[in-house]
Amino acid sequence: MKRRDFIKVTGLGVAGAAAVASPAIAQSMPEIKWRMTTSWPKSLDTLHGGAEMMAKMVGEATDNKFQIQTFAAGEIVPGLQVLDAVQSATVEMGHTAPYYYFGKDPTFTFGSSVPFGPNMRINQAWYTLGGGRENLNEFFRSYNVTSLLAGNTGCQMGGWFRKEINSVEDLQGLKFRIGGFAGRVMQKLGCVPQQLAGGDIYPALEKGTIDAAEWVGPYDDERLGLYKVAPHYYYPGWWEGGTMLLAFINLDKWNALPKSYQSVLEQAGHLANNWMMAKYDSVNPMALRKLLAGGTKLHPFSAPIMEASFKAARELHNEVSATNANFKKVYESLTSFSNNSYSWFQVAEVGYDNFMARHSQS
Amino acid sequence: MKRRDFIKVTGLGVAGAAAVASPAIAQSMPEIKWRMTTSWPKSLDTLHGGAEMMAKMVGEATDNKFQIQTFAAGEIVPGLQVLDAVQSATVEMGHTAPYYYFGKDPTFTFGSSVPFGPNMRINQAWYTLGGGRENLNEFFRSYNVTSLLAGNTGCQMGGWFRKEINSVEDLQGLKFRIGGFAGRVMQKLGCVPQQLAGGDIYPALEKGTIDAAEWVGPYDDERLGLYKVAPHYYYPGWWEGGTMLLAFINLDKWNALPKSYQSVLEQAGHLANNWMMAKYDSVNPMALRKLLAGGTKLHPFSAPIMEASFKAARELHNEVSATNANFKKVYESLTSFSNNSYSWFQVAEVGYDNFMARHSQS
Repeated sequence: MKRRDFIKVTGLGVAGAAAVASPAIAQSMPEIKWRMTTSWPKSLDTLHGGAEMMAKMVGEATDNKFQIQTFAAGEIVPGLQVLDAVQSATVEMGHTAPYYYFGKDPTFTFGSSVPFGPNMRINQAWYTLGGGRENLNEFFRSYNVTSLLAGNTGCQMGGWFRKEINSVEDLQGLKFRIGGFAGRVMQKLGCVPQQLAGGDIYPALEKGTIDAAEWVGPYDDERLGLYKVAPHYYYPGWWEGGTMLLAFINLDKWNALPKSYQSVLEQAGHLANNWMMAKYDSVNPMALRKLLAGGTKLHPFSAPIMEASFKAARELHNEVSATNANFKKVYESLTSFSNNSYSWFQVAEVGYDNFMARHSQS
Repeated sequence: MKRRDFIKVTGLGVAGAAAVASPAIAQSMPEIKWRMTTSWPKSLDTLHGGAEMMAKMVGEATDNKFQIQTFAAGEIVPGLQVLDAVQSATVEMGHTAPYYYFGKDPTFTFGSSVPFGPNMRINQAWYTLGGGRENLNEFFRSYNVTSLLAGNTGCQMGGWFRKEINSVEDLQGLKFRIGGFAGRVMQKLGCVPQQLAGGDIYPALEKGTIDAAEWVGPYDDERLGLYKVAPHYYYPGWWEGGTMLLAFINLDKWNALPKSYQSVLEQAGHLANNWMMAKYDSVNPMALRKLLAGGTKLHPFSAPIMEASFKAARELHNEVSATNANFKKVYESLTSFSNNSYSWFQVAEVGYDNFMARHSQS
């Protein structure tokens, strides 16, 4: 081949490469429209707001090439069937609290919060760098979904009680509206756990069909008006020390995404996660003041109740671990990380928070 | 015009539209290369690692169309001149602790942490939704920079002391290596604050040129080996309750970015922020154990020292507020948000953390 011919051929080669480059751009930024269904009514602007924020960020980052339309609970899928809808690809993704699906397998509980699990920061550190995400996604794979961090409520409240609860004996026979796996710990303590949707709690408490009910924290609780019929407001909600919300994504849809869109989704989840925590930290204080002004009586759970609950939770976790290898594996991963992390957290952080809590006057 | 001609013309029109579409894509995803200089040596894989993570996420999200090259302190700009380099557009952006620039204006302090400022979560909530970002960026505008959230260390330690410090009297004349604005509070308490670079601390403590030194927390401190020459390790570092790291971006460069790239940068900062906090929460526990095994003696600052420090910090903040309108404005925004937020945080969170700290055995 002559040099001139070689150049020609090379020239063609370059042109060919350029012709390939345009489709490559189109492939890396394809126009994609997804649907995300959530477990939340629109009125919960903290939880549903976090899902909307995640979708908005994905649109912004991709110049609206990747659009996610958000649907509230019941619009296309019932609030507690988000997992099923994502698994079957009815929707590409969902925003939910994985512990809602503990009936399928209690291992789901670790995707949100386990009784006496760590606070928000340690739970999130476990998910992010402590093996949580890998452990959970390995488990979620059998449901054909993967997960991303997408929100946190912080430590929740222990709920609303018609009468004061001072001792473990006061829990005997107490009809307590409490969600998910935590109800099984309550059962060990003598309570009768009840499953009720948010809107049914007020009339049940008013009539005395139930004696107590937990929901989230001041801002979300205040809207239900429970303080009017059950004025004793207990803390902390030891079954929700730092509840994570995750985005569930259908695994086939996830794998079909360009790598750049996978990264955009993950980063949008981190922003939404921080937005939601900041939102709770911004709106809960005022809501708590309103509740107190409305006659709410604030109490800590007594030391005997906390200790008995801690013991009951450990027992339950060990019982489930004995028969469920998935649960055992994730429980050991979380507990080991959390115990280790608290050995440092209790030094500077807890001491500083105790001091600052005493010295902050609003 | 014949129908056949019309089709031809339409054909051309479509081809023209396609030709326009390509530049539109090119404009929304232009190839951009930025440089980010940091205040950290590469060996600080927590702080510098956070900057690198932010750059990596921007590349991933944009299919490497937007590339940010990260430089450690001293590679192209000295570690404490990040602001100046970004202001003058020597580099497009930087990763730093804004309080390093308190000599220009103490208002910079609020970009990281102010003595007896809030913990990580509340500081971050203030920046994100409590007016912090708006207040700070309005102030930063006069330096031709804007900021994004890009990391947090959590509550730091109070530092290494050659002798035990029990009373406020023990602080009199103490030569204490302490950075930035906190040194002025220490001065009020009778200390003699010293400015020393990280590498100079060990020999100064060994010779007794200084009596004490603060750095960050267990993981970063352990590398300096200070426990060998000043074994008394105090907590908490009340001048660093939840220190934020920010990305500074030259305002002209920021304004020239496509909106999508601005959004990508912000989201990458949130992921890096969470990665850094998770990294500290993962590695500090083991480092603390190593320090204790090496002979470190852990002490809380005594109540009288904490109270006197709190009083001195308030005095200083009020003095500076009286003559600096920027400082006053941002201080009032932060204090109002923080006091309000702690009124809720102290209920569920602090109680839960106290319980969990007691019940976590590693």
